[in-house]
Amino acid sequence: MTELLNALNLAGTCAFAISGATIAVQNRLDIFGVMVLAFITAVAGGVIRDLIIGAIPPAAFQSWHVLALTVAAALLTFCATRLVIRLQNVVQLFDAAGLGFFAVDGTQRALIHGIEPVMAGTLGLLTGIGGGILRDVLSGNKPLVLSSGFYASAAIAAITLVLVARALHLSGGEGVAIAAVALCFCLRVLAIYGHWNLPSAPIGTRQ
Amino acid sequence: MTELLNALNLAGTCAFAISGATIAVQNRLDIFGVMVLAFITAVAGGVIRDLIIGAIPPAAFQSWHVLALTVAAALLTFCATRLVIRLQNVVQLFDAAGLGFFAVDGTQRALIHGIEPVMAGTLGLLTGIGGGILRDVLSGNKPLVLSSGFYASAAIAAITLVLVARALHLSGGEGVAIAAVALCFCLRVLAIYGHWNLPSAPIGTRQ
Amino acid sequence: MTELLNALNLAGTCAFAISGATIAVQNRLDIFGVMVLAFITAVAGGVIRDLIIGAIPPAAFQSWHVLALTVAAALLTFCATRLVIRLQNVVQLFDAAGLGFFAVDGTQRALIHGIEPVMAGTLGLLTGIGGGILRDVLSGNKPLVLSSGFYASAAIAAITLVLVARALHLSGGEGVAIAAVALCFCLRVLAIYGHWNLPSAPIGTRQ
Repeated sequence: MTELLNALNLAGTCAFAISGATIAVQNRLDIFGVMVLAFITAVAGGVIRDLIIGAIPPAAFQSWHVLALTVAAALLTFCATRLVIRLQNVVQLFDAAGLGFFAVDGTQRALIHGIEPVMAGTLGLLTGIGGGILRDVLSGNKPLVLSSGFYASAAIAAITLVLVARALHLSGGEGVAIAAVALCFCLRVLAIYGHWNLPSAPIGTRQ
Repeated sequence: MTELLNALNLAGTCAFAISGATIAVQNRLDIFGVMVLAFITAVAGGVIRDLIIGAIPPAAFQSWHVLALTVAAALLTFCATRLVIRLQNVVQLFDAAGLGFFAVDGTQRALIHGIEPVMAGTLGLLTGIGGGILRDVLSGNKPLVLSSGFYASAAIAAITLVLVARALHLSGGEGVAIAAVALCFCLRVLAIYGHWNLPSAPIGTRQ
Repeated sequence: MTELLNALNLAGTCAFAISGATIAVQNRLDIFGVMVLAFITAVAGGVIRDLIIGAIPPAAFQSWHVLALTVAAALLTFCATRLVIRLQNVVQLFDAAGLGFFAVDGTQRALIHGIEPVMAGTLGLLTGIGGGILRDVLSGNKPLVLSSGFYASAAIAAITLVLVARALHLSGGEGVAIAAVALCFCLRVLAIYGHWNLPSAPIGTRQ
């Protein structure tokens, strides 16, 4: 099971990096900007979480492995943008799995550092969506996750499952984690194919 | 007096959350985005201050109370946007009180953590205006506080009062704090009704 | 040699502050916004680095000197914008020296705090370019360093020299540091006069 979780981590990191690099290419950043956006999209959520819970230095800065992985993903996206865009359905699947993993893993790390459950879940959510928000701000776009789609909600469902299982003293942390990631993954896939959206306030309220 | 300070904290948190939620609604974010912007506007300044002074975990992550309060303010704003906008004069009064409280409280927390006075005041100012800056960046606008109005200046006046009283070894920390908040509040109210602005450099300098 | 490094630190801080203040004036921020942008451009990279390596409080908050220097640079730019813009060639030279200093100094501070070399270099790069990225985001522009020019690359060359010298156990830390800053400086000057750019992905890939 630990191997499955490691694979999810890897898949998520690559998918997040590719999403950052793709948006960088589409916004005409140069090759350095593409690498920066890939790295930031993949690690920013976790880095901010680690700063808040006091895990210093943040995991992403403890070895060069994540940096190397994201730079490789950036170079691939830069050199073969058409291919990456054609494969975006696959990337979205990896992204859905990664979102679930980051949200669940972030929640568990916050709990280990003594954060109370609701705020630990909030930090798990930040781990999942923080990188994407920064990616959009740095490329001059409004954060996608705040305005459309059913993205954060899938992560919230997974986090809720983790916290409920913990409150019920269910044993088998890794089993619960994998079930939660699977829940997030399925909700994301349904949401993508069903074009789910959360409501916005009616337009008439705009001044 | 402690109760008065607690009330100011509460009023400020609600006002900041409502201002974040209102701008989120006006910029067509979905209901999740409205909640995120409400929370970030209310807590981001204090979280960054706590990271800088080493108060880990930041106050906003030590319990779920602030999160719950900001989510409630966000839902109210989402469901009754017209009402909230009609009441914006009241919200601005709460906001003025909250600005003063956050600036003074932020300065005092930084002093307690051993930051020297001028930089403690800078961190108090960051506590007061950091959330609003992040609110504007995340909703795709230029930070209002950096370009118009007399907002940060009211907070700076309150902070200066706190630091001068401290340099003069005046006793009665809570009395000074409340006087400083009142100063900020009065300046803000005058500034709103008088449309005060700080100068910009003359347009001719623009290239 | 220590005095030369101190002078580079001073020159870089002033140049970064002036670049922040200039962009603030050009984007019609008020005088408070000009001071904020000057301070943030000069210190944000180092502050984020210090949070990540656990140097609390960050260097910029340990005394009021850097704040005073950046506020003075902001006031100068605000009152004499035409003069500052006319002198922008000189400011760019100071900026090139400062970029090298911040990148090298940031790398060495990260190494001292036990960060492994590649990520220490990444933090050195963040020290050099983080402030400029935040300056652009806060003034409503896309980060310049991610999309054009040969700016980060000059810093990366200097950082690489520091890390290679360290791997070869070359003695004389300050001599290596000054050689690295000089390398960054020369590359930047060549890049400015030669209009060097990194490649972007071909336009056809844009959707």
